[in-house]
Amino acid sequence: MNNDVNASQPRTGERPARTGVWFVGARGSVATTAVTGCAAVTARLHAPTGMVTETQPFDGTGLPPLSTLVFGGHDTTHCPLPKRAEQLTEAGVLPHGLAPAVRAELRAADEAIRIGGPLPDDPRGDEELIADFAADLTSFRERHALARVVVVNVSSTEPLPAPDAVRLPASSLYAAAAVRAGCPYVNFTPSTGLRTPALTEAAAAAGLPHAGRDGKTGQTLLRAALAPMFVQRALHVRAWSGTNLLGGGDGAALADPGAAAAKNAGKERVLADTLGHTPQGEVHIDDVPVLGDWKTAWDHVAFEGFLGSRMILQTIWQGCDSALAAPLVLDLARLVARAHEAGLSGPLPELGFYFKDPDAGPSGLTEQFTALLSFADRLRNAS
Amino acid sequence: MNNDVNASQPRTGERPARTGVWFVGARGSVATTAVTGCAAVTARLHAPTGMVTETQPFDGTGLPPLSTLVFGGHDTTHCPLPKRAEQLTEAGVLPHGLAPAVRAELRAADEAIRIGGPLPDDPRGDEELIADFAADLTSFRERHALARVVVVNVSSTEPLPAPDAVRLPASSLYAAAAVRAGCPYVNFTPSTGLRTPALTEAAAAAGLPHAGRDGKTGQTLLRAALAPMFVQRALHVRAWSGTNLLGGGDGAALADPGAAAAKNAGKERVLADTLGHTPQGEVHIDDVPVLGDWKTAWDHVAFEGFLGSRMILQTIWQGCDSALAAPLVLDLARLVARAHEAGLSGPLPELGFYFKDPDAGPSGLTEQFTALLSFADRLRNAS
Amino acid sequence: MNNDVNASQPRTGERPARTGVWFVGARGSVATTAVTGCAAVTARLHAPTGMVTETQPFDGTGLPPLSTLVFGGHDTTHCPLPKRAEQLTEAGVLPHGLAPAVRAELRAADEAIRIGGPLPDDPRGDEELIADFAADLTSFRERHALARVVVVNVSSTEPLPAPDAVRLPASSLYAAAAVRAGCPYVNFTPSTGLRTPALTEAAAAAGLPHAGRDGKTGQTLLRAALAPMFVQRALHVRAWSGTNLLGGGDGAALADPGAAAAKNAGKERVLADTLGHTPQGEVHIDDVPVLGDWKTAWDHVAFEGFLGSRMILQTIWQGCDSALAAPLVLDLARLVARAHEAGLSGPLPELGFYFKDPDAGPSGLTEQFTALLSFADRLRNAS
Amino acid sequence: MNNDVNASQPRTGERPARTGVWFVGARGSVATTAVTGCAAVTARLHAPTGMVTETQPFDGTGLPPLSTLVFGGHDTTHCPLPKRAEQLTEAGVLPHGLAPAVRAELRAADEAIRIGGPLPDDPRGDEELIADFAADLTSFRERHALARVVVVNVSSTEPLPAPDAVRLPASSLYAAAAVRAGCPYVNFTPSTGLRTPALTEAAAAAGLPHAGRDGKTGQTLLRAALAPMFVQRALHVRAWSGTNLLGGGDGAALADPGAAAAKNAGKERVLADTLGHTPQGEVHIDDVPVLGDWKTAWDHVAFEGFLGSRMILQTIWQGCDSALAAPLVLDLARLVARAHEAGLSGPLPELGFYFKDPDAGPSGLTEQFTALLSFADRLRNAS
Repeated sequence: MNNDVNASQPRTGERPARTGVWFVGARGSVATTAVTGCAAVTARLHAPTGMVTETQPFDGTGLPPLSTLVFGGHDTTHCPLPKRAEQLTEAGVLPHGLAPAVRAELRAADEAIRIGGPLPDDPRGDEELIADFAADLTSFRERHALARVVVVNVSSTEPLPAPDAVRLPASSLYAAAAVRAGCPYVNFTPSTGLRTPALTEAAAAAGLPHAGRDGKTGQTLLRAALAPMFVQRALHVRAWSGTNLLGGGDGAALADPGAAAAKNAGKERVLADTLGHTPQGEVHIDDVPVLGDWKTAWDHVAFEGFLGSRMILQTIWQGCDSALAAPLVLDLARLVARAHEAGLSGPLPELGFYFKDPDAGPSGLTEQFTALLSFADRLRNAS
Repeated sequence: MNNDVNASQPRTGERPARTGVWFVGARGSVATTAVTGCAAVTARLHAPTGMVTETQPFDGTGLPPLSTLVFGGHDTTHCPLPKRAEQLTEAGVLPHGLAPAVRAELRAADEAIRIGGPLPDDPRGDEELIADFAADLTSFRERHALARVVVVNVSSTEPLPAPDAVRLPASSLYAAAAVRAGCPYVNFTPSTGLRTPALTEAAAAAGLPHAGRDGKTGQTLLRAALAPMFVQRALHVRAWSGTNLLGGGDGAALADPGAAAAKNAGKERVLADTLGHTPQGEVHIDDVPVLGDWKTAWDHVAFEGFLGSRMILQTIWQGCDSALAAPLVLDLARLVARAHEAGLSGPLPELGFYFKDPDAGPSGLTEQFTALLSFADRLRNAS
Repeated sequence: MNNDVNASQPRTGERPARTGVWFVGARGSVATTAVTGCAAVTARLHAPTGMVTETQPFDGTGLPPLSTLVFGGHDTTHCPLPKRAEQLTEAGVLPHGLAPAVRAELRAADEAIRIGGPLPDDPRGDEELIADFAADLTSFRERHALARVVVVNVSSTEPLPAPDAVRLPASSLYAAAAVRAGCPYVNFTPSTGLRTPALTEAAAAAGLPHAGRDGKTGQTLLRAALAPMFVQRALHVRAWSGTNLLGGGDGAALADPGAAAAKNAGKERVLADTLGHTPQGEVHIDDVPVLGDWKTAWDHVAFEGFLGSRMILQTIWQGCDSALAAPLVLDLARLVARAHEAGLSGPLPELGFYFKDPDAGPSGLTEQFTALLSFADRLRNAS
Repeated sequence: MNNDVNASQPRTGERPARTGVWFVGARGSVATTAVTGCAAVTARLHAPTGMVTETQPFDGTGLPPLSTLVFGGHDTTHCPLPKRAEQLTEAGVLPHGLAPAVRAELRAADEAIRIGGPLPDDPRGDEELIADFAADLTSFRERHALARVVVVNVSSTEPLPAPDAVRLPASSLYAAAAVRAGCPYVNFTPSTGLRTPALTEAAAAAGLPHAGRDGKTGQTLLRAALAPMFVQRALHVRAWSGTNLLGGGDGAALADPGAAAAKNAGKERVLADTLGHTPQGEVHIDDVPVLGDWKTAWDHVAFEGFLGSRMILQTIWQGCDSALAAPLVLDLARLVARAHEAGLSGPLPELGFYFKDPDAGPSGLTEQFTALLSFADRLRNAS
């Protein structure tokens, strides 16, 4: 089974090196769930369901054990993490009784959160913001004597940047700070982050590995599993339409047409890449506040079979956004930390399994999983 | 794209060898659609959508061209194929105008159909039936000067044989006749066919390749595409329930609890093999005559994610059973004929892509497709 | 049962009066299906399934028999009706074989179609267009010696008129012409039509009955049937979201955001009127050309039950738009013709059963049906 | 909104008469939820969502206020109600924090629960069991000085009784005890209960009102709302198929084919009564233990429209069984208690709104609701 707590324990008796995980959006639902869940799994209160790095193929790959992760991050809001965890419990995201059980770990992470930016009317320019953020990262690493810090963007989706924007998008300011502070970087959102030519080049020059973009947790995950079926069976997909309903922070952010456009660009890529053409059909993301973190995705696929026969596949996915994202975020932080330790740098296309809009690599889910397993072998054999 | 008419043309100017395709259930919907569709694609009236063997990876593999296939078969009913094709047109299975356009081919196949058995009150014993069926096969091969004849079972699903049955199931009588007449064999149904120790051994001794069992055309196809996703993502499937609605001959046959049991045994295998455990949930097959050949499959998957979160995936598949099956039947006839030509014998686990209950091999659809592509390479390199 | 051909036959041996049905949008799918279907039911080639006026409660109400309807209309395209009927047959809207069987009736209607407007670069002003259209109506009535002509708008949805528009929307030009020519009027679309204060008043002054707006044929029909259930059971609807996929002319027209806004205004009314509040959730109408006239509507209803429990209802409606609309259009033409004969004038709120955005009356489907049955009684008792 | 706490308060300053509610199956999920919910609404911890009797039309009808209900019952298990409420909280049926808040009320009800029967190897005959149960009822009424006691069957569904059964079904033993003790009776299950000629007659002779059978809380509720739509629109339903998934006690009970048969008999009645014919299609009830009290019902309706067009409606209902049932059970106890006070006796067909298999009356939901509102008027005007 997939839930075995694997042997990701330190290999020696000495105190293991510790690894920092720095969330951009550290008070959001995904970060709160990740911090809570890491503590819960470490304390064996829950099996690591949903964490691919805790399954057997990752045994012996030298990933940092969950017990050695130290959390911090940036956010622009102030609600303390223990309070956020209570809110997520009320919202049905976290199980009742868990937040109190890991209160100490939530408090510790909360103390390591720094105010991000740019804030409204922030007087700082881009350079100053980058410098401030980088200083926060360096300070976190030194204070906790961390081997390294992985920066993970889990903040709300930004609108697509305007072509004539005078400043960098916030996600890119944080990414630039990561590079400056020598931190590997993961972008779990569709925002720009490191994906500008200058920043990508700077990360490579600094020998930093990075991965992105836009975590694949629902509709696109399903599409990556299903679209290859049509190709393999020589069936012709004529139209693929979809609607997503969700509330929570992401629902509200994506109600902004610009942010939705950013999200949908990634969503459509999986179909074009897999099918070899772009079928008809649109994708909607609706903000439905009462649904909170529970999202529903309906997909309708009109395809053609033998002798022009017209057939339909429909799927309905009902999942908890943060519970889907958090274990992947922990996976990615560990994988990219280990890649950094192993001396890898630049984009890691073998992590396309996790992303809607990956840096490169195959588009079908099983092929992406095979690439991930190869990556595990590579890590296992690295120093 | 997947619809290219590939280069499955004879390699020399001389008249190519012809290959027989002998359907057990030759007047059924699947056989009628296969004969009609082969003629339609050969005449370039339709693209070969749904035929995997007409896609690029099968170029140069030496498969018998569609234009060289000669059809015949056994059935216990008498309605002529041109009439059956008209009925299927009325039922929305075949496009209007196609049956008249390929009337000559339908007539030719109809003339090669022989009455099967055992008929009600049939005085013949098992041995006599096998001998009669084998004689029909030999006669067909000789009359049409065929290089070989592939026997393909597309008849209605039989009930599971009783442990104390005094005679072989009909499907096994036909399979035994195939072996006796030196014909490769494909079982597209869940019936027993060749899958008895004695018959499997006899086929191997005779150097005959064979493939089965139970074509994967709807719910199980989807399950083979989706179940790996849960494993790859370390999500725990708690229950997988399903209901199939269909009319037509198959709906009526499967209203028999024994036949449904045979069908469901195969359906459940994909989940157990892929997930490593058998989740809760049942599978129903309902006969709904008004739906005819158009089947609907609803699946409901209850799975658990991070920190015990409870999530749901539902799928609804609406397809035309015969239009899904017929191109696969043509694929299989060609692949097994070529395997015979290439000297392969025994079960062909690389064809698990096509079956609910395959002889061996992986259970995930993409891994099965990869195995099929390897098989194509093997054929390409064979003499 | 609902398929009885009722006694809507002339009451005397003399030749019955004939009634004109004038379609605005006479070459569209709905009008073509209505003309074809009227002929098919009259010739007893098909049962009148979907026509409420052919069920038992309408016996003896004096509706004009289907055999006495004479069709004509305005359109701005030129494709002849027999050709349009062939296209609809290819598209799966009309059954094969029907269009040739009623070719004479299609030709007759086609000959009565006049070019509408305003055409691109039309030099005519509003007044001239109204006068021309009214002349077409009068000429049709006189040429065929019709007792009356009902004008029925079944053209593509217009965008919402701009507040500063200098001319009347086309639908209102046709409505004004109907009033001028003394014709009762039905608006089966969400366009403005007669719904301006001036036109509504003019119709009343002219003693003309009229009905509208926006035929209820899918998602809104379902909502009108389901929303009362939540109210009756004291369940609280928190969000009601929906997506419509369709191709055909309506899909393309509604891809225009302005037209979609017009459509959605009506769609939302049923929920607000029935539930007493407007739940969260959006409605999308997507143009998916490959779906043609076959539309799919997915609805997702999040509701709250006892002790705050969170529950979900989802519906998927797959129907043929023109086949749903055409029998209602015939119903309405007959009902409004008979209302005119009976001396009724002004809006007919008892016909709210047919509309998304009715003139008045209850919002639940069953209450609307009850009102329709009362209207039948009223007609039965009228002179 | 429909959730106003209405004026169901005592009309005078003196201490109001109290009414007993005696559950057969008093430790089951429905009874536990009803006791918990009654206390929660009385304490204004929750709005009475889902309770029809708390909406405006029931103002002034003299129903016993929720605060005057006293609970007791029979069961054959021993788990105390406060513990059962905790279990239902873990299962997601009751909201966290509620069970502790109403612990006193749960304890009080628990103390009034008596062991039912027949137990395994119970030496008592039918007559002795009836006498014992009736004594329990009388004792409950006297101990608490209750104006009356309504017996409500909410126990697990029994198999259909065998034609040659030597003893009465348990549900009928309890019903007989209710009659003997002079108690009005409600059967919320498909079990036999009072529905034998002898018992029905005895209830009438005793002047007792009663209502049943089989609460309408999901699939059948939807069918009662939707089936009239097809009739009203003259659309022809060809097949109506359904599958229910649920765990909990009911799922297990209905895994018994006999019990499922009892349930399905009621389910099919709504279609036959409304449509005037029985469409094709089956109904399945699957026990899926991991789903607990959360049930999912999928329905597939194949219908025919104008000119033979084939269309489909599908519905998916995801609800919490006990949360759907409990408010209706409270409604029924109050309505039948008031009917008893008002001197009504025999079956109450006006309560068909609540039942799958009602005693009489219309089959469409809205017509049933109208009948219920008339009943409210009747109660309001009664002494």
